[in-house]
Amino acid sequence: MTTATGEHEWLEGGITAVPGILAGGVVAGIKPSGKKDLALIYSSTPARAAAVFTSNQVKGAPVLVSAEHVRGGQAQAIVASSGCANVCTGEQGIKDAREMTRLVGELLRIPANHVLIAATGVIGVPLPMDKIRAALPKLAKSLSPQGGRAAADAIMTTDTRPKEAALRVDIGGRPVTIGGIAKGVAMLEPHLATMFCFVATDAVVARGALGAVVRRAVDGSFNRTTIDSDQSTSDTVAVLANGLAENAPLEAGARGLRQFAGGLEAVMAKLARMLVADAEGASKLVTVAVRGAASRRDALVAARSVANSPLVKTAINGNDPNWGRIMMALGKCPARIDQEKVSIAFGEERLVERGMLKEGVRLERIQEIMERSEYDVTIDLGLGRGEDRVWTCDLSEEYVRLNSKYTT
Amino acid sequence: MTTATGEHEWLEGGITAVPGILAGGVVAGIKPSGKKDLALIYSSTPARAAAVFTSNQVKGAPVLVSAEHVRGGQAQAIVASSGCANVCTGEQGIKDAREMTRLVGELLRIPANHVLIAATGVIGVPLPMDKIRAALPKLAKSLSPQGGRAAADAIMTTDTRPKEAALRVDIGGRPVTIGGIAKGVAMLEPHLATMFCFVATDAVVARGALGAVVRRAVDGSFNRTTIDSDQSTSDTVAVLANGLAENAPLEAGARGLRQFAGGLEAVMAKLARMLVADAEGASKLVTVAVRGAASRRDALVAARSVANSPLVKTAINGNDPNWGRIMMALGKCPARIDQEKVSIAFGEERLVERGMLKEGVRLERIQEIMERSEYDVTIDLGLGRGEDRVWTCDLSEEYVRLNSKYTT
Repeated sequence: MTTATGEHEWLEGGITAVPGILAGGVVAGIKPSGKKDLALIYSSTPARAAAVFTSNQVKGAPVLVSAEHVRGGQAQAIVASSGCANVCTGEQGIKDAREMTRLVGELLRIPANHVLIAATGVIGVPLPMDKIRAALPKLAKSLSPQGGRAAADAIMTTDTRPKEAALRVDIGGRPVTIGGIAKGVAMLEPHLATMFCFVATDAVVARGALGAVVRRAVDGSFNRTTIDSDQSTSDTVAVLANGLAENAPLEAGARGLRQFAGGLEAVMAKLARMLVADAEGASKLVTVAVRGAASRRDALVAARSVANSPLVKTAINGNDPNWGRIMMALGKCPARIDQEKVSIAFGEERLVERGMLKEGVRLERIQEIMERSEYDVTIDLGLGRGEDRVWTCDLSEEYVRLNSKYTT
Repeated sequence: MTTATGEHEWLEGGITAVPGILAGGVVAGIKPSGKKDLALIYSSTPARAAAVFTSNQVKGAPVLVSAEHVRGGQAQAIVASSGCANVCTGEQGIKDAREMTRLVGELLRIPANHVLIAATGVIGVPLPMDKIRAALPKLAKSLSPQGGRAAADAIMTTDTRPKEAALRVDIGGRPVTIGGIAKGVAMLEPHLATMFCFVATDAVVARGALGAVVRRAVDGSFNRTTIDSDQSTSDTVAVLANGLAENAPLEAGARGLRQFAGGLEAVMAKLARMLVADAEGASKLVTVAVRGAASRRDALVAARSVANSPLVKTAINGNDPNWGRIMMALGKCPARIDQEKVSIAFGEERLVERGMLKEGVRLERIQEIMERSEYDVTIDLGLGRGEDRVWTCDLSEEYVRLNSKYTT
C-alpha cells in the first residue's frame, strides 16, 4: 500500500525498501532481556556516506570510530548494538569498537573503514566482546532485503515499538527511494536512551553534496524534538546513498538536490515524530509552534523553552489547560517577549489574547483537545515574522519510574 | 536554645526574632483549602529596604508594584498572599496590588509606597479583592512579636512545612539580629510555585549599602539552588533593616558590612536549603560541588547542568549510582570538559577516576550514601581552580503527580 503526499509517495517498510540495501538483526546476549540487540545494515554496492553525531563533549567510542570512518565519505555497512553504550570505557572501548568494524568488514569483504558503528545502552561498562564475536557471523548471515524490521527491532532499548519510514520521490523523471529506521529519542535535546537514525537511499548524490543535505534534514527533524533536555553521548544519524537509482548526480544548488533534500527531511521528520510519540512514559505528541517572533531564532528559543518546561510537560500530562505555565516558560527564555502581545491557541481554539485569558473562552473545548494523543499549541508573540516549531511530549510518572529504576 | 556556628549564633524562630518586627497571618479565603493565605510583616520603625525580583520577562503585578515602591530605599511593611499570583491579569491586576498596599498603609498609618507586596498561586486569575478587603483589618490586628510563624504559614502553597531562620552576629561589639521566612522553591532556576524570602534585621545599614549586600547574598544562596529549571513570575526576596541595634552604620567596604553580609547569606542559605529539601515531591537534598574547573563560571555551569538533568535527578530518586548520567550532563554543558580528567565522588567515596569507573570501587558504600536524605556529589574536572556548588533535589513520581493535577 502506498499513499501519495505532496511530491512524495510513502512506502511500507523502512531501510530495506531501498534497492540494494540488506539488513538483519540477531540476539547476541548483550541485553539481559534476551531480545535482539545486534543490527547490521549493508549496501550491496559502496555508498556515499554522511553522518551527524552527538554534540555532547563526552562521546562514546563508537561515535569516535564512526566519525573517523565517515570522513572518507564512503561506507557500505552500519553495525549497531543495544544494551551497552561503550562510553567512558577508555582505550579498551576504542579497541573494541575498532575490532567490531574489522570483523564486520571481514565477514562482508569490505574495508573496516567502510563500516560505521553505533551503540546504545548503559554507560561505563565494557562491551561483552565474546558474545559479540560469537554473534557477528550469524548477524552477517541474517542480512536480507526484508531484514529492515529486524534491524529496527535490534536497536531498540526502552522503545516500545520499532520505527521505520520510507518514501519514493521522483527526481528528473527517475524514482528515488529513501528509507530509514530509528530508535530512542531526540537529538539536540535528546534523552540519554540515545537516538539513532540510519537512512539509505539509492539516489546518486554528488561528492560533497550529501553532508550539507543531511545536516539540514537533521536540523529540521531531530533537532526540532525534545524529550527532557538531556543529551546522549552516543546519538548518531548516518545516511548511505548507493546510487542504484542511476539518476543524474544530484549536485549542490541543483533543483534535484532540493527535491531529494525534501524527501530526506520528510523521512527524518516522520521518524523524529515517532521517537517523540514513543518517548519514555510519553502519552502525547505535542507540536509547539511559535510565530510572530522577532526572529526565527527567537521563535525556536521560545518554542524550546515551552517544550522543555517540566511544568508545561506535566500540565500536558494531566490535560490541564494551564496557560500560565506557558507564559512563565516564554518569560524565562532569552527571546524577546512582550507579555501584552502574546496569544496562545490549543488546536484551533484561542485561549489567551494580549497575555490574558480570552473572554468567553470555551475551556471545555480546550480540555477536549488536550485529551487527544496529538495536538498543536500555537503561540503568537505579536512582534515580528519569525516562526519555528518543536515536537515535544508529556512528562509522566512513568518517565520517572522508568528512569529511577532502569540503569541507562 | 541557641547554637554557635562560626561567628553566628543561630536563634530559634524567624523574622520576629528581630527586635521591632511584628508579623501575622490569617485566613482570607483565597485558598480553597481554608488555610492561612494572607501574611503581614511590619517594622515598628521605618526601615531601609532592598529587594530582588524574578528575572522572568513575564512579571506579576505585585512584583511591578513592589519594584516601584522599593526604589525609594525605604519600607515598613510587607503584605503577601498565597493562592492567587495576580499575574497576567492586566490593568486590573496592577490596580488590585496598588489598592492592597494603600489599604495596608491606612491600617498601619504608613505611606502606601512603604508597603511591599507579593503574591503566589495560580496565574491568570484576578485576586478575590472582596475577601482580601474584608480580611485586612483582621490581618493588621494579628500582628505580634510572636507572629513570624503564622506569617510563614500563610505564604505556603505546596510547601509541606514553614521555613524560618534567625541568627545573631556580633558587629563591632554590638549584637545584630537577622531573621527571615521563606516559601516555595528556587530563584534563578525556580519552581513556578514561586519563592519568597522576607528577611528583617535590626542592623543600621548605610544608605546605598544594603542593595549590593542583598544581591550578593541571594546569589550565594537562592541562586545556587535548582528544582526543575522553571522560573516563577513572582519570585521576591525583600530585606528590611530597621536600625534598632544602633550599631555604627554599616558602610560599603567596611569590615562590619562584610560580617553582616556573612550573616545575611547564612540566613538565606539556610532558608534556601530548606526550600530545596521541601521541593515538590522531593525526598533528598543533594549538594553538587564542582572543583578543578577552568573558571568559577565553568564550575557553576557544570554544577547546574548536573543538578538540572532530569536523568541525574531520577537516578538520585532511585538511589542508583548511575555516574554515566553525570558524565552525560557534564558533556552536554558549555563548560570546558576533558572526559579523561573527570573524577566523581559521592560523599567521601570516590566512584569515577579519569572518566571511568574507579577500580575496586565499593558500590554498596555509594548506595548507602545515596540512601541518606542529604549528601554531596563532588566532581573534579581536573582542569583548573574554579569551583562552585548548587543545591538540588531528586525528581520523583510525586513531583509529576502534583504538577499534572494541581493548577499552579
